[in-house]
Amino acid sequence: HHHEYVDAAVDAHDDWARRRRKGIPTDKQLLVVACMDERIPVEGALGIELGDAQIYRNAGGKVTDDVIRSAALTTQFFDTEEIIVVNHTDCGMMSAPDDAVVEGLEAAAGGDLDDVDLDPALPELSIGDAGVADWVRMTDDIDKACAAQVRYLDEHPLVDATVHGYVYEVESGQLRYPGGRIAEEISTRVE
Amino acid sequence: HHHEYVDAAVDAHDDWARRRRKGIPTDKQLLVVACMDERIPVEGALGIELGDAQIYRNAGGKVTDDVIRSAALTTQFFDTEEIIVVNHTDCGMMSAPDDAVVEGLEAAAGGDLDDVDLDPALPELSIGDAGVADWVRMTDDIDKACAAQVRYLDEHPLVDATVHGYVYEVESGQLRYPGGRIAEEISTRVE
Amino acid sequence: HHHEYVDAAVDAHDDWARRRRKGIPTDKQLLVVACMDERIPVEGALGIELGDAQIYRNAGGKVTDDVIRSAALTTQFFDTEEIIVVNHTDCGMMSAPDDAVVEGLEAAAGGDLDDVDLDPALPELSIGDAGVADWVRMTDDIDKACAAQVRYLDEHPLVDATVHGYVYEVESGQLRYPGGRIAEEISTRVE
Amino acid sequence: HHHEYVDAAVDAHDDWARRRRKGIPTDKQLLVVACMDERIPVEGALGIELGDAQIYRNAGGKVTDDVIRSAALTTQFFDTEEIIVVNHTDCGMMSAPDDAVVEGLEAAAGGDLDDVDLDPALPELSIGDAGVADWVRMTDDIDKACAAQVRYLDEHPLVDATVHGYVYEVESGQLRYPGGRIAEEISTRVE
Amino acid sequence: HHHEYVDAAVDAHDDWARRRRKGIPTDKQLLVVACMDERIPVEGALGIELGDAQIYRNAGGKVTDDVIRSAALTTQFFDTEEIIVVNHTDCGMMSAPDDAVVEGLEAAAGGDLDDVDLDPALPELSIGDAGVADWVRMTDDIDKACAAQVRYLDEHPLVDATVHGYVYEVESGQLRYPGGRIAEEISTRVE
Amino acid sequence: HHHEYVDAAVDAHDDWARRRRKGIPTDKQLLVVACMDERIPVEGALGIELGDAQIYRNAGGKVTDDVIRSAALTTQFFDTEEIIVVNHTDCGMMSAPDDAVVEGLEAAAGGDLDDVDLDPALPELSIGDAGVADWVRMTDDIDKACAAQVRYLDEHPLVDATVHGYVYEVESGQLRYPGGRIAEEISTRVE
Amino acid sequence: HHHEYVDAAVDAHDDWARRRRKGIPTDKQLLVVACMDERIPVEGALGIELGDAQIYRNAGGKVTDDVIRSAALTTQFFDTEEIIVVNHTDCGMMSAPDDAVVEGLEAAAGGDLDDVDLDPALPELSIGDAGVADWVRMTDDIDKACAAQVRYLDEHPLVDATVHGYVYEVESGQLRYPGGRIAEEISTRVE
Amino acid sequence: HHHEYVDAAVDAHDDWARRRRKGIPTDKQLLVVACMDERIPVEGALGIELGDAQIYRNAGGKVTDDVIRSAALTTQFFDTEEIIVVNHTDCGMMSAPDDAVVEGLEAAAGGDLDDVDLDPALPELSIGDAGVADWVRMTDDIDKACAAQVRYLDEHPLVDATVHGYVYEVESGQLRYPGGRIAEEISTRVE
Repeated sequence: HHHEYVDAAVDAHDDWARRRRKGIPTDKQLLVVACMDERIPVEGALGIELGDAQIYRNAGGKVTDDVIRSAALTTQFFDTEEIIVVNHTDCGMMSAPDDAVVEGLEAAAGGDLDDVDLDPALPELSIGDAGVADWVRMTDDIDKACAAQVRYLDEHPLVDATVHGYVYEVESGQLRYPGGRIAEEISTRVE
Repeated sequence: HHHEYVDAAVDAHDDWARRRRKGIPTDKQLLVVACMDERIPVEGALGIELGDAQIYRNAGGKVTDDVIRSAALTTQFFDTEEIIVVNHTDCGMMSAPDDAVVEGLEAAAGGDLDDVDLDPALPELSIGDAGVADWVRMTDDIDKACAAQVRYLDEHPLVDATVHGYVYEVESGQLRYPGGRIAEEISTRVE
Repeated sequence: HHHEYVDAAVDAHDDWARRRRKGIPTDKQLLVVACMDERIPVEGALGIELGDAQIYRNAGGKVTDDVIRSAALTTQFFDTEEIIVVNHTDCGMMSAPDDAVVEGLEAAAGGDLDDVDLDPALPELSIGDAGVADWVRMTDDIDKACAAQVRYLDEHPLVDATVHGYVYEVESGQLRYPGGRIAEEISTRVE
Repeated sequence: HHHEYVDAAVDAHDDWARRRRKGIPTDKQLLVVACMDERIPVEGALGIELGDAQIYRNAGGKVTDDVIRSAALTTQFFDTEEIIVVNHTDCGMMSAPDDAVVEGLEAAAGGDLDDVDLDPALPELSIGDAGVADWVRMTDDIDKACAAQVRYLDEHPLVDATVHGYVYEVESGQLRYPGGRIAEEISTRVE
Repeated sequence: HHHEYVDAAVDAHDDWARRRRKGIPTDKQLLVVACMDERIPVEGALGIELGDAQIYRNAGGKVTDDVIRSAALTTQFFDTEEIIVVNHTDCGMMSAPDDAVVEGLEAAAGGDLDDVDLDPALPELSIGDAGVADWVRMTDDIDKACAAQVRYLDEHPLVDATVHGYVYEVESGQLRYPGGRIAEEISTRVE
Repeated sequence: HHHEYVDAAVDAHDDWARRRRKGIPTDKQLLVVACMDERIPVEGALGIELGDAQIYRNAGGKVTDDVIRSAALTTQFFDTEEIIVVNHTDCGMMSAPDDAVVEGLEAAAGGDLDDVDLDPALPELSIGDAGVADWVRMTDDIDKACAAQVRYLDEHPLVDATVHGYVYEVESGQLRYPGGRIAEEISTRVE
Repeated sequence: HHHEYVDAAVDAHDDWARRRRKGIPTDKQLLVVACMDERIPVEGALGIELGDAQIYRNAGGKVTDDVIRSAALTTQFFDTEEIIVVNHTDCGMMSAPDDAVVEGLEAAAGGDLDDVDLDPALPELSIGDAGVADWVRMTDDIDKACAAQVRYLDEHPLVDATVHGYVYEVESGQLRYPGGRIAEEISTRVE
Repeated sequence: HHHEYVDAAVDAHDDWARRRRKGIPTDKQLLVVACMDERIPVEGALGIELGDAQIYRNAGGKVTDDVIRSAALTTQFFDTEEIIVVNHTDCGMMSAPDDAVVEGLEAAAGGDLDDVDLDPALPELSIGDAGVADWVRMTDDIDKACAAQVRYLDEHPLVDATVHGYVYEVESGQLRYPGGRIAEEISTRVE
């Protein structure tokens, strides 16, 4: 009878809509950590679709306490088993020296950043003796930065997952391994 | 001559690939803050395309210090003028009571969370007297939570932008205003 | 020879055009009873195509004597074996109280509805001591109403079929089981 | 700002989902009355789309008390201004003589139909001295039947609308005016 | 080697371009005889494609000496084994009585048609004692006419093929067998 | 009102289905005379569509008495004003010498063709003193043949139309003017 | 794990981008030598795609020292095993007599061509006693020219490959074998 | 009349097929000089289509005497006014040192290259005192090589055209200006 076909569709939609409550993991049991840059087609670059993976994105694709919080929750409670980090060339985190960034933020704050709640929902959060530049975490070299983020996640006690990282080249629309840039190499003669 | 056409294409690609370095903002001067849930088609739900907006996503779409960091950078340095927050129904942040989450994380850490670096790249970061549950920030009511995130961003001294928020209904594939749920209303008689 | 191919096409068209006269049932031996609301994509919602099912539709998707007439004919004479009822949220039958509807109809009739033939082709039809509101049959709760229509059909001596019912949510474009609304549930914390 | 675009989409969806409650009529202010036959592509044949018109369908596309109820509600309360009737060739209502139908129903009822509630939700409904065949309302000639249904609706005091009717030819996939059959005419010589 | 692929393509094109010279028959070894009317989609109606069949078309789809010439050549020399005749409703050959046609042609000739070469390339061709109307061959009934053309071809000594005929209904876009019109039948009650 | 839209569609279909009876000409008032070869995409080659033109086709695209009959009827009675002749390369009419064809037909007839009715529906038709080869009308040169067919039609008293002709090259899929072959020319040096 | 899928894509792109450096040959191990004429769809005509073959093109598709250089490199170092030559009708190399070309070039040079470096990057290159017309190498007959280019490549000691040639007909969009022109043949009667 | 439409199509095809003979230039009056590498989508990269430009391609996209011959012919006789040079990364001309190439060719020749006709159709062609490596012309740096080819063409007395050059990056599928590589730049911090 046709109602069995309809029932199956109704049940599938219920699984989708109450997925978290029912304890159903993402289709690929995957968390992606990527930069928030507007030029990164995260799903397309990784070959994933809606439902496949949770996607964490922030300025620079850097491992912060928020990444640890998010990764801990999904690996401990939502059956996520794998993390893929995606950084990218021409990242905004490479667009200025530390000094310029700190000065800009102080100007915005109208003075010293010590008087500002870095986390408005959790005023107790502080960075102690570290400087604002440490908290902003600009990037010197995107390939090295990517490798470092992989390491931070891989070694963290609250995060239980296989971790890999890639650099997305905005100039080519391709992923490369950290350190795997070939653009210089292939423009000159083999010796 | 045809080389003018080719030059224009080469220049447009250079603008795309070196956009940040050249100080070109996102096409809509927009930052989206959304949950990292695998069921949220952020671009489709908001009617935006690659290039239009930076997209910050974390567990719960909550305003953390990382959101402040990211929002401060883009509004102060990248000409971003607007922020849209997207929370959603059946969020994982509503799937357990605080106690259960804290216990789970402690078990993962093999003991007390005080001994764990919440931010492996910034060990100085601490939450002081706040409890782990405060840092995890679970959600009681998704509509109220959405309104609160909007308020946090709107009032923060480092963030300079117009802020609005919406709840994405995973059961309907539609956005609603916070508090704008109609599902109960339209299932019974008008009185 | 090619004429055999052409003959087969001619015969198939004859089966379609004289289907009723030749005693050929619907492809799924199915009758759908649904509301006449302009927002219900009956075929799409049920996953059926032209030829699969007869589709009865009236104001509210309510079981009237006309539904009994139509269902009796198709189950007794056209080999239909299954009935699916589709009601929907925001139904017009929930848009006003009984009093307002009766008053509106009396105003349209220019007085008492007793003087009007409820069935112009069958003036002998009457509703006896029942009130006009009973005949109009407004809806208090769409989920309970759906369950009731299923029961009316399931128990009627002239109707011989398996009967199931669903509520179509116009806000989500999804079917639910009667009573299966989840929208409230997934907006707040699990306790 | 982009939130204005999002707001407009949220509001449009609210209009769709609460259309009846907000008193928004169908897009064409149109009610269609058609047969429930599985071969009638009602929307395609009339060139209408989801949202354009309410669609009443029963066995034969006949004007019953349920049609009057439904048409009265939509023309008096939902701003509907036009009704289109669609009957069709090879209708099941022409597939047997009255006697055969009445006998079949009596056999299904296990005896006399007087003991059966014609309307299980409104047991007070009766057809008085009329026979079962009058209630079943088989069809002798589909073109004359179509014209009659138009007349019943056009003249009824509770129904306030412009009314037109067409016969859908299942053999050609085309609509014709009642009495407008040309198939015989164009198969022989003009005299 | 790739040149083998190219050679195969070159050879296939040579077969197509010199098909007749090489004695290659049509793909379905089929000849269609149809009316020249602008509304007949001959290939679509029969489910054939370019290359499948030779297609003879004249006024009325009538078997003339030119049809016999063409059918004799293809069945005797080009391996054609089957003929399908396609006549159609609303044929121009039914649009006037014999008298009107003969008068019109005489007016065009400026007098008697006896003085006109019916075949300008073969002035010896004559119709002897037959009248012009016999040569024009108007149609009284399209179904009977179709059956007659099938018979003429089937019995002719120079034509060696299986012969079938269909009437294409311009009103429905469907083929029927000669005499297989159902339009009247399905508009009235079964007795 | 929407019924006006429906009425317009019903009327347009009536014009199509009773076009000849209503005296409506082809959309381009055009008759095409072409060969019946299976490789000629007549509509595509001429850039015409269903409804644009009547299409006469026989063996060789030759002007016979049947062409005169068909062309006379459409130019005198159906408002056709233009004729286009399409012959083609590799025509079957060039595939054998006259003797071989005549012998083949005599063999098929089992003797002399004088004893065969060339037109089974019009036994009075005869070719007098002409030979069978004259009636078969094989082709020596396709470009000259095309020009001759144009002349026959242009000069015939019963045919009132502008006449042009083209040769369709099956080897190139292109039309050329009669005598306009360039294939040799462009394979060698300009002198 | 999903990173294996991503790794495979990254590796495949590296093979493409560093193909030559990694010693990966073309997909079909094929070199095409064709004319530079703007009307030759080389890939489409040969049924090849990006990656399949290296494509050498010059004025006339003639075997010059540059062809020998290019063919030697690819057959000796890049595993190319096959060469296909494509010449074409209406080639510019047939558009003028030798005298006119030499005069034109001398006028452009403002005098004697002996004073011009034929190869600006290799001034030592000279044509000795040969005339300018020998170096320009106009074409008398495109089919013979094609056969000659095949022979030059096939016999050259530095070129190690299977060699075939075709003439592309710009008038038909088809390839033919050298000498395989059929256009004249199929326009006249078989004898 | 429709024949005017057909005539226009026949004439346009004649212009295409006899373009060179009629003195019609390429649609963009453009010559492209590119490498023969199988990964260069020349038309797509430059945004041109069939008919727009002549395309010269050889090993390395180097300016040889054959390029001068081809460019001289098209700029002096075919109204070409512009030349675009396309070199590319990972070119085979950078895949080995000079010594290795010369040794490989000598091995293929079975000894000294002095005994080999570099141009089999023009044995008088010699490279005088230059070495084989000079004739092979390997590439050290692709950006410098591209600029040099532009200069050779721009300065040559037989070539009369505007000349521009680009490097096609096989790793990104993008063109760059010679020297315009950005891949290193955008992977590290702005200082």
